[in-house]
Amino acid sequence: MTNIAVIGLGIMGLPMALNLVQAGHTVAGFNRSPERAERLAEAGGRAATSVADALAGAEVVITMVPDSPDVVALAGGDDGIIANAAPGTIWIDASSIRPDVAKQVADEARAAGLRPLDAPVSGGEQGAIDGVLSIMVGGEQSDFDAALPVLQGVGKTIVHVGPSGAGQTVKAANQLIVAVNIQALAEAILFLEAYGVDTEAALAVLGGGLAGSKVLDQKGRKMLDRDFAPGFRLALHNKDLGIVTGAAREAGIVVPLGAHVAQLVGSTVAKGDGGLDHSGLFKLTLAAAGRE
Amino acid sequence: MTNIAVIGLGIMGLPMALNLVQAGHTVAGFNRSPERAERLAEAGGRAATSVADALAGAEVVITMVPDSPDVVALAGGDDGIIANAAPGTIWIDASSIRPDVAKQVADEARAAGLRPLDAPVSGGEQGAIDGVLSIMVGGEQSDFDAALPVLQGVGKTIVHVGPSGAGQTVKAANQLIVAVNIQALAEAILFLEAYGVDTEAALAVLGGGLAGSKVLDQKGRKMLDRDFAPGFRLALHNKDLGIVTGAAREAGIVVPLGAHVAQLVGSTVAKGDGGLDHSGLFKLTLAAAGRE
Amino acid sequence: MTNIAVIGLGIMGLPMALNLVQAGHTVAGFNRSPERAERLAEAGGRAATSVADALAGAEVVITMVPDSPDVVALAGGDDGIIANAAPGTIWIDASSIRPDVAKQVADEARAAGLRPLDAPVSGGEQGAIDGVLSIMVGGEQSDFDAALPVLQGVGKTIVHVGPSGAGQTVKAANQLIVAVNIQALAEAILFLEAYGVDTEAALAVLGGGLAGSKVLDQKGRKMLDRDFAPGFRLALHNKDLGIVTGAAREAGIVVPLGAHVAQLVGSTVAKGDGGLDHSGLFKLTLAAAGRE
Amino acid sequence: MTNIAVIGLGIMGLPMALNLVQAGHTVAGFNRSPERAERLAEAGGRAATSVADALAGAEVVITMVPDSPDVVALAGGDDGIIANAAPGTIWIDASSIRPDVAKQVADEARAAGLRPLDAPVSGGEQGAIDGVLSIMVGGEQSDFDAALPVLQGVGKTIVHVGPSGAGQTVKAANQLIVAVNIQALAEAILFLEAYGVDTEAALAVLGGGLAGSKVLDQKGRKMLDRDFAPGFRLALHNKDLGIVTGAAREAGIVVPLGAHVAQLVGSTVAKGDGGLDHSGLFKLTLAAAGRE
Repeated sequence: MTNIAVIGLGIMGLPMALNLVQAGHTVAGFNRSPERAERLAEAGGRAATSVADALAGAEVVITMVPDSPDVVALAGGDDGIIANAAPGTIWIDASSIRPDVAKQVADEARAAGLRPLDAPVSGGEQGAIDGVLSIMVGGEQSDFDAALPVLQGVGKTIVHVGPSGAGQTVKAANQLIVAVNIQALAEAILFLEAYGVDTEAALAVLGGGLAGSKVLDQKGRKMLDRDFAPGFRLALHNKDLGIVTGAAREAGIVVPLGAHVAQLVGSTVAKGDGGLDHSGLFKLTLAAAGRE
Repeated sequence: MTNIAVIGLGIMGLPMALNLVQAGHTVAGFNRSPERAERLAEAGGRAATSVADALAGAEVVITMVPDSPDVVALAGGDDGIIANAAPGTIWIDASSIRPDVAKQVADEARAAGLRPLDAPVSGGEQGAIDGVLSIMVGGEQSDFDAALPVLQGVGKTIVHVGPSGAGQTVKAANQLIVAVNIQALAEAILFLEAYGVDTEAALAVLGGGLAGSKVLDQKGRKMLDRDFAPGFRLALHNKDLGIVTGAAREAGIVVPLGAHVAQLVGSTVAKGDGGLDHSGLFKLTLAAAGRE
Repeated sequence: MTNIAVIGLGIMGLPMALNLVQAGHTVAGFNRSPERAERLAEAGGRAATSVADALAGAEVVITMVPDSPDVVALAGGDDGIIANAAPGTIWIDASSIRPDVAKQVADEARAAGLRPLDAPVSGGEQGAIDGVLSIMVGGEQSDFDAALPVLQGVGKTIVHVGPSGAGQTVKAANQLIVAVNIQALAEAILFLEAYGVDTEAALAVLGGGLAGSKVLDQKGRKMLDRDFAPGFRLALHNKDLGIVTGAAREAGIVVPLGAHVAQLVGSTVAKGDGGLDHSGLFKLTLAAAGRE
Repeated sequence: MTNIAVIGLGIMGLPMALNLVQAGHTVAGFNRSPERAERLAEAGGRAATSVADALAGAEVVITMVPDSPDVVALAGGDDGIIANAAPGTIWIDASSIRPDVAKQVADEARAAGLRPLDAPVSGGEQGAIDGVLSIMVGGEQSDFDAALPVLQGVGKTIVHVGPSGAGQTVKAANQLIVAVNIQALAEAILFLEAYGVDTEAALAVLGGGLAGSKVLDQKGRKMLDRDFAPGFRLALHNKDLGIVTGAAREAGIVVPLGAHVAQLVGSTVAKGDGGLDHSGLFKLTLAAAGRE
């Protein structure tokens, strides 16, 4: 069993830490608001009082924070991971951030003797709770192999996709597909409702054909019910689409539907709906059709 | 067992007719180019020489033709279905056509004593061969019930979604989702290739998360291999997107990604790629990024 | 001077008829709601009681009605133009309708011995009042030449652009450009406001460079003032964009920004703003950015 | 008359410098490839051998370089403007760069005792040669007033639009409008050609109505002739659209057509056409319609 530090005990980080405890690992957790760490302690982990405290004795550190600057901030500084982790520590960053930032942070960590992996996840809060996340991992093959037993405590589909940054690149592609698929479903349901079709029956038959998808399975019901409780927030998806459209521009390629859906998601946030689940694209779609 | 006429023995119609023979039905088939009907005859069906000949003795007629005008032409005229089908015949139109045309043809058929169902399918050539099509059916409940045993010979997910025309409305929604999902996948793979990620590994992990879909399962491999052999042709998908965008306009709603992808699919056809599988949207996506 | 019938005395038709009276022509006008014809009579024209009455003695008939079906209805029937116009009458249809319908109506009129021209206009209510409309004319060169003195009574830039239907094709292109240019301006002003720039100064300098346009000159002020009083209504522009996107699809070409702006204009109408001036695209643009 | 240094003697910078000589100013020019400076010297200016040399005695320095990093590089360092310009020097940066970078560079320059203005221009090579550029100026009012006599040597419409950075913000808005207007014109001409309309006549009549614009006047002819010689290069316009879409995202607003046209312009560059004039969007539009 492994001695693990988990930094960031939010919607995703806490259930991941709890699953690691369940799997028999020794887990110390740190979070800015300490009550989240208390919940870990109640379940058999340890509530750390700082990043340095969490890292004491850790063979593996997992970070799960919202955005690129948070990871950069965690990496450096006197209380940061690079200053406090023992040489040889495996650092699994499960946050979803910019691929170029991930690569740069990994380079710095590696120069300091750490073994960094970018390992963003897909599957949402429920996937984190159930321990069935998909994890797309960038970094050295040997570091991936060493981290795999720990990752198996939180995920089901765990794939090494390339060098440092590659995990984030795949996550960016994931977010592009998911946003576009959600919007496609939203437009389809709007269309069906406008024509007075039995939408429950329609979703059943759509799910059985080439239109079937995880998005249809997980978000169709929510759209029919106008239930936009998160789940995964539009504000975070908007950040991710900024990453993917920016990275596409950097690479000199074009992603027309990706850029289009980024505008639609950006609009939901601008209108004050950033706290809704990303199925809330349906709310915008209804409004644009005068049917809200 | 039922006496069935099948009109239109193309890529979809012939395997459907063959499956009905296998299921023990008596099947007469008619096709403009008679060699397709010969293949049915070799498998135990009967090669009819005209629509009227196919309809002789039929309790159920299934039509599977490319577009709205083809169905209208089949319905009327001296050699048409309405003139030649016995009263009470169930007419299952499995073609994908305009919902308003489907409704109008059904009204005429019903006035002539027939029992019309619009029953477009999803699942492609392979789904037709395997007899596992999704079938979205519009029409009277009692006619649906009567037709169900026959439909079970060609499909797996068979759902009554509303009155005449509703099947076509759901099919239009299906085509919107499928086209948008294909384009999303195309952009995601372009993005991954541009960043040099291991795309096979990436598709594996994407398929395990919220980005997973039938489109990813069935079209991802084709895109990686640049294999755009049909399958379902872009020219037909373009016709279908004309239906869905036109019907959305009729209904006074807006479907932004649907309208956008209709332009992209329209471009593939304009460039001469209408004969490719709809996964050929990836070819356009590569070309737009200078990576063809 | 010429004996002229004007059918349709709406926002555009009445000032055109009044200008023809001013120019010295003999003008009879017919309108469904007769008070509009009274205003023509007060200014020196004649209030006709039917299409047939208006056509009595007319050498030229001008029609100005909202949409394709209105022109078709005016053409045929016992009280229609074809049945009541004297052979050799020049029929100037100034309505904005589908090019294919314009061609078909012209063919029928020509077969009946009339001299049809499709002659849609650009310039709006103010242009009609000032008699400075741009007129794009399709039809026979000789008919255009014969009609020119009359057209000069209502317009300034009057150009023969091709055979019957060509006028409507150019008008469709006009409406595509105008809608896209309006939306471009709306997004630019939103951008400037979001950054707190002096928008009046900005519009002044933008107008002096390559961004300068009639749309900027005529609609910029309205946007700054949130003055969306028509002018040209979004509902009519939406109809026109349906024409242009439909005709583009017919021709097998793609017009990506045209299709995109058609969705945006469609959304304004769906949200109940179809009665606003087309500069009201700015209202939608503000709303999408949470700044309404 | 004023002692002026001009740094960057490219397509725009050289004719601006020549016009300043003509206007009676004392002009020293520096360019990386010295033959451009020689042309200035032949016309009565001075060919400087370094930035520092150009700045010797200068009361005003004008910089005209391609992108944000170029301006940053010019500002700092031992041979940079801040290190070498005399206190009180007016620094007019006529480059088109990111508004936030412009503001930051201006802050640094002001802290060093300089009087910075961001003053990007519109009007293209011809406008620079003719001395009729539109100039959108950000900075202190008093610095604008002091710089105005110099700016009048190169431009016609010269407007102070706000504090430092505001000039670049207006330029970004300018580039959004111009790109969208060009694409609108491209789609309109494609549409007209597809229907076989007399495009010369059509452009004449379109120019007389609400569709009229500088873009139509200056780029319509080029499109009809398939003459895509620059002019203003697509690669630079692509850079500018990256600025405007990025700044829109920063500001939390959405610019749907701007984002869409950024994809189209990005595609021209990806396909290797970045060296064409921005009217080359018509080439992409033709290709997408299979009409190249």
